[in-house]
Amino acid sequence: MNQPSAIGQRLTRVDAIEKVTGRALYAGDLRLPGMLVGRILRSDRPHARIVSIDTSEAERVPGVKAVVTGKDAPDVAYGLVIADQFLLAKDKVRYVGDPVAAVAATDSFAADEALRRIKVTYEDLPAVFDPMEAIKPGAPILHENFKSYGQGLFGGLPSGEGNICGKTEKVVGDPAKAFAEADFVFEDTFTTQIQHQCYMEPHSSVAKVDADGKVTVWTSTQAMFFVRNGLAKIFSLPLTKVKVVPMTLGGGFGAKWFPFTEPVAVLLAQKTGRPVQVVFSRQEEFTSASPRHATSIRIKSGVMKDGTIVAREVSAVVDAGAYLDCGGGIAGGIAGGGCGPYRIPNAKLEAIAVYTNKTFMGAHRAPAQPQICFAIESHTDITARKLGLDPLEFRLKNGLQAGDVGYGGEKLKRSMFPVLLKKAAKEIGWGKKKPPNVGRGIAIGQWPVGGASSGAIVKANDDGTFVVITGAVDMAGTNTGFAQIAAEALGVAAERVSVTTADSDTALHAPGSGGSIVTYNVGKAVREAAEDLLKKIITAGAKKLEAKRRDVGFDGKEVFLKADCEKKIPLAALARTGQLVGQVVTQAPPPQLVLAAQAAEVEVDPETGKVTLLKIAAAQDVGRALNPMAVEGQIQGGVSHGIGMALTEEMVVKDGRVKNPTFTDYHVPTACDHPPIVPIIVENKSAFGPFGAKGIGEPPCVPTAAAIANAVCDAIGVRISDLPVTPEKVLRALRAKHG
Amino acid sequence: MNQPSAIGQRLTRVDAIEKVTGRALYAGDLRLPGMLVGRILRSDRPHARIVSIDTSEAERVPGVKAVVTGKDAPDVAYGLVIADQFLLAKDKVRYVGDPVAAVAATDSFAADEALRRIKVTYEDLPAVFDPMEAIKPGAPILHENFKSYGQGLFGGLPSGEGNICGKTEKVVGDPAKAFAEADFVFEDTFTTQIQHQCYMEPHSSVAKVDADGKVTVWTSTQAMFFVRNGLAKIFSLPLTKVKVVPMTLGGGFGAKWFPFTEPVAVLLAQKTGRPVQVVFSRQEEFTSASPRHATSIRIKSGVMKDGTIVAREVSAVVDAGAYLDCGGGIAGGIAGGGCGPYRIPNAKLEAIAVYTNKTFMGAHRAPAQPQICFAIESHTDITARKLGLDPLEFRLKNGLQAGDVGYGGEKLKRSMFPVLLKKAAKEIGWGKKKPPNVGRGIAIGQWPVGGASSGAIVKANDDGTFVVITGAVDMAGTNTGFAQIAAEALGVAAERVSVTTADSDTALHAPGSGGSIVTYNVGKAVREAAEDLLKKIITAGAKKLEAKRRDVGFDGKEVFLKADCEKKIPLAALARTGQLVGQVVTQAPPPQLVLAAQAAEVEVDPETGKVTLLKIAAAQDVGRALNPMAVEGQIQGGVSHGIGMALTEEMVVKDGRVKNPTFTDYHVPTACDHPPIVPIIVENKSAFGPFGAKGIGEPPCVPTAAAIANAVCDAIGVRISDLPVTPEKVLRALRAKHG
Repeated sequence: MNQPSAIGQRLTRVDAIEKVTGRALYAGDLRLPGMLVGRILRSDRPHARIVSIDTSEAERVPGVKAVVTGKDAPDVAYGLVIADQFLLAKDKVRYVGDPVAAVAATDSFAADEALRRIKVTYEDLPAVFDPMEAIKPGAPILHENFKSYGQGLFGGLPSGEGNICGKTEKVVGDPAKAFAEADFVFEDTFTTQIQHQCYMEPHSSVAKVDADGKVTVWTSTQAMFFVRNGLAKIFSLPLTKVKVVPMTLGGGFGAKWFPFTEPVAVLLAQKTGRPVQVVFSRQEEFTSASPRHATSIRIKSGVMKDGTIVAREVSAVVDAGAYLDCGGGIAGGIAGGGCGPYRIPNAKLEAIAVYTNKTFMGAHRAPAQPQICFAIESHTDITARKLGLDPLEFRLKNGLQAGDVGYGGEKLKRSMFPVLLKKAAKEIGWGKKKPPNVGRGIAIGQWPVGGASSGAIVKANDDGTFVVITGAVDMAGTNTGFAQIAAEALGVAAERVSVTTADSDTALHAPGSGGSIVTYNVGKAVREAAEDLLKKIITAGAKKLEAKRRDVGFDGKEVFLKADCEKKIPLAALARTGQLVGQVVTQAPPPQLVLAAQAAEVEVDPETGKVTLLKIAAAQDVGRALNPMAVEGQIQGGVSHGIGMALTEEMVVKDGRVKNPTFTDYHVPTACDHPPIVPIIVENKSAFGPFGAKGIGEPPCVPTAAAIANAVCDAIGVRISDLPVTPEKVLRALRAKHG
Repeated sequence: MNQPSAIGQRLTRVDAIEKVTGRALYAGDLRLPGMLVGRILRSDRPHARIVSIDTSEAERVPGVKAVVTGKDAPDVAYGLVIADQFLLAKDKVRYVGDPVAAVAATDSFAADEALRRIKVTYEDLPAVFDPMEAIKPGAPILHENFKSYGQGLFGGLPSGEGNICGKTEKVVGDPAKAFAEADFVFEDTFTTQIQHQCYMEPHSSVAKVDADGKVTVWTSTQAMFFVRNGLAKIFSLPLTKVKVVPMTLGGGFGAKWFPFTEPVAVLLAQKTGRPVQVVFSRQEEFTSASPRHATSIRIKSGVMKDGTIVAREVSAVVDAGAYLDCGGGIAGGIAGGGCGPYRIPNAKLEAIAVYTNKTFMGAHRAPAQPQICFAIESHTDITARKLGLDPLEFRLKNGLQAGDVGYGGEKLKRSMFPVLLKKAAKEIGWGKKKPPNVGRGIAIGQWPVGGASSGAIVKANDDGTFVVITGAVDMAGTNTGFAQIAAEALGVAAERVSVTTADSDTALHAPGSGGSIVTYNVGKAVREAAEDLLKKIITAGAKKLEAKRRDVGFDGKEVFLKADCEKKIPLAALARTGQLVGQVVTQAPPPQLVLAAQAAEVEVDPETGKVTLLKIAAAQDVGRALNPMAVEGQIQGGVSHGIGMALTEEMVVKDGRVKNPTFTDYHVPTACDHPPIVPIIVENKSAFGPFGAKGIGEPPCVPTAAAIANAVCDAIGVRISDLPVTPEKVLRALRAKHG
């Protein structure tokens, strides 16, 4: 094969120009005949019983075709993990933004007018906003019947008491003894804020219900099969009656797994017999669409004089908001990841998720890990400084080594811990002299890439080109990677392969696009399907050439007789009328631990407290970089997310009300806020991922906030333990320090 | 298995209500952001050289985004079988309706105004409209460079001379000798008219061209892969760059194979960078969309005194219109089917297709067979009467018998000829006394159902329901049949199976929906894919139950241990996350001959010549009736097509201009024109089709016109040899007879 390897090529995403020019087709772009606009009335109370809802005035607005309330919605509770919420509130509301009623009208003006005319009579209930208050005896209880709740869409069951809705406790070794025997014990507490995913495209969907009851939903989703199964559950439909068509995804970052717009669109479409489109406003995105959980994390370490960490204790409280969503998983991730990528033989790790009367929180890029990493890596820095040790050396002494079992369960053949940390530190000049008010910080984080079974099909087209078909939504350029994977397996150029994401009816199963699992799992299926196709090409060619399989070769365009290359048959002839199809359904491969080390150089203005980022180096174990440009893009994007968490982003909630539900008041880092971000790709091939690839999307946002906070402390000697690191907090800390 | 058989159930089409209420999504329903309206300027000359086209005034119309002519279109000729036409005329126009230029504008008013402002300067050429004139020496030649034309989309090459663009000659036995030795020789000539397909939904498509050049076309098509390959050829694109998404089909009847609206939509989308929608007006449908070929057929038979037909000669001229399309195939079908379903040992069968300056003609339900059947079965009736034989007896004496090789090549294990004819004749009271001016006629026709390779996938859903995925467009309820086939193979109820037609990227290959081949071929693939899935269900269940495959059973919901039914595992558990997928790509099965016999009872008013249909009985070999209601619907619909051909439909073309291009002037039979149509289903299982099914769509329109014409003659003693049988022709014949 003369074909240069498709793996390692720097390919532009096939959909790049369509997306940046806005020409790609989004769910919000659809206009179906007779389509209505759906709008949701949301609670303006943080906690209240619904006494009555009068929709009569709303129904009279010209153009209004349906007004629905909890009474019209199915009596089926659902939720990501446990069934703690309804499509529209049944009896009470639990946060400002809880859906109460919905309207379908011929245009948005009529729909909005109808919303204004719905009269809801509430009986206010005492509310609780702070999880620390919510776990106190006598606190208002959000879910009185919590223990009776059923399984959610992911199939969990409730565990907890009062407002505690999720709990993880994990003990390793003998932490009490280890703490008792430790030379030093250090303890710190950190808090992290509510951070929004800030995808550009709002949640959007269109639902159409056929006369036979079949529901078709065109939607912006990361996880078509999850949404399909969710809708089937909510509306008590067999899966034959629900079809989810994923449209171009304008960003998701975890917030587009859960069915947000889809159920209400379906309900309204069922009631009206017409297609209904629901597009969230930006305000709804901020008040009602599952941002990153705020946390409070107390962390304690027992350390020996030589700098060996011998014991760890973590006790964390996760603010879940009004519904659990993945809050239990966040508690699990914080406790489970509480030792970070360090070898700590004794540990007691606890985290709880707590209901409060706030918007419910959910999955956001690398759920749980940026929060616990900020705590661990700030604490590690503080500890090193207290011990008088170089933070890099202190880390290297305690980092995971070959043979250790990492978070997620993988026994490491090789530890990337030292390589990554050293490379990142070196890139920002770690240890070198620095100007006044300039500081350097490092941090290392982790993400376990999970295994999931996937299907894939690779077809040879009539002209000898190829098409890859999967059920994975392209969120991060994964389809471009699939083209490379299939091309490599077939020994052809990547441009001869197109990739298509089918819908939930036509696609073989794939896991949702999140958790950095797509390339690792679906990519593996693509590779195996392409290999299956290659076998069939060889078999078909050998048959035509009347030869044995082992006596023929395939050069990407023709099958030829190895002994006589002139005897050959073009692929296009073999592939005619779709004769050649490769297909596979894989078993789930084992999880793979991915580490990401980052180093930040910052300058802090002691007059204003403003932190200016000078440089961020981001070293990451990527397994194998299928498309280095895409990997760099993911790393830079992840760091950008981390910068927002570190410095500028925070959903401010007062008395249950989001005070900054706009992009004017909620500060996503702009181009001006970004320093040069230097991605450092380190390859450490996975034995399971396609051509050695692992997942790359989550890890780069994990250690950023910690690295920046550490650099700030290095620059001006004050430690900010409460994200984000705002100028106000820095100034306050400087004043407290210097009086 | 307690499950009653899914085969044989009378199921309503799943899309029935959506279609009859107009709620189904058609290509014409789509509205994409920035979408433009595309319109085509058509020649108003039957034959002319294009001297120049001035588009400057058109381009100035506000809202006009592109005006294109032949110069802007690809220099790639194409056509169904040979490459004899261009997207827009390059040098000359050959019929009134030939596309000359096209416009894309923001609305239809601007587009139409722009069309009016395009100035085309023509140099008229002599035109020829009658194929008999067109084959004379010195006739105007439509395609001067005919012999240099390349392959069309189906991959044929030109054969012919002058305006003769297709030719079939077939000789069996020694016809000259047989005619010389025959006791009698009878000869007749028949002509048939241009008949339009009259689908309710016009040709419609929307094209979008992505920044990377990928073309997506949503379209009303019977044959997505054919349109995809056509667009790839016309625009010189690899198949990775063309995706065809078939929308709900509002009727096709053969006219929606060829790319009509799609190429011009793509060209305009390429030029403007915006999506473009092209929907034909009803007038365009009549002037420029491939109706059924008019024919003139001379037929001669040599017959012995005992009524045995010993020799046959057919000489036919097929009016192709301005481009060949499938005209060569029509000549082939008329010559090839020239003996009808009769055992005639000696035959000379010839047919030619001829270019004329008329709209080009194309595939229409059972292409070629209604025409040749009308000739054969009228001639057979005439012959019987001349011999003094009962037309039924005469036919039975000469019909195909077991062991004979039928049209299409099948060696018949059993001949359905006598069964069908007798059943149809009996149903209308053949041989019984009849009132004055009432007549009875019979006819028998044939259709060879072809074999084609197909792919199919059957998935088990997470909840234990199933979905069938194919690349076949549902034109006649075939998807409902697929559900039954898969259900039967799996031993489950049909309502647990949904069926989806994927797009050209995501579907495995299927032949286009036409020629009655879908159920026979794609249905076979569906059955095999379901059987493949069943094997996988058994294997997965056996593994879970730690048993051997032969020791477990599947009752549709659970896999159980045969020896202990309490030990079982639900399908839903085995199918979770898409683990169970059945898939197949079949080899083409052999062709199957289908016969259809019809009997008509009519009353003719001798004062007005008006023919009133009293009853039509339609007996058909269906192989196996998977869904008797669907079969009855196809038979009744086919007869309806035949009634139109017999009595009311005719595209009147004068000097190349269609004089009746509207549903007001072109008479499709209405409800009032239909008698009771009695479908008589005769099962004669195919050894190859799924559960014995054959194709059913084409045969019922084949013998209708002949049966009616024979009944008219039986009623009032005049023979109309020239379709349609209008009151004027009947009156004229009566007057000629009675003076």
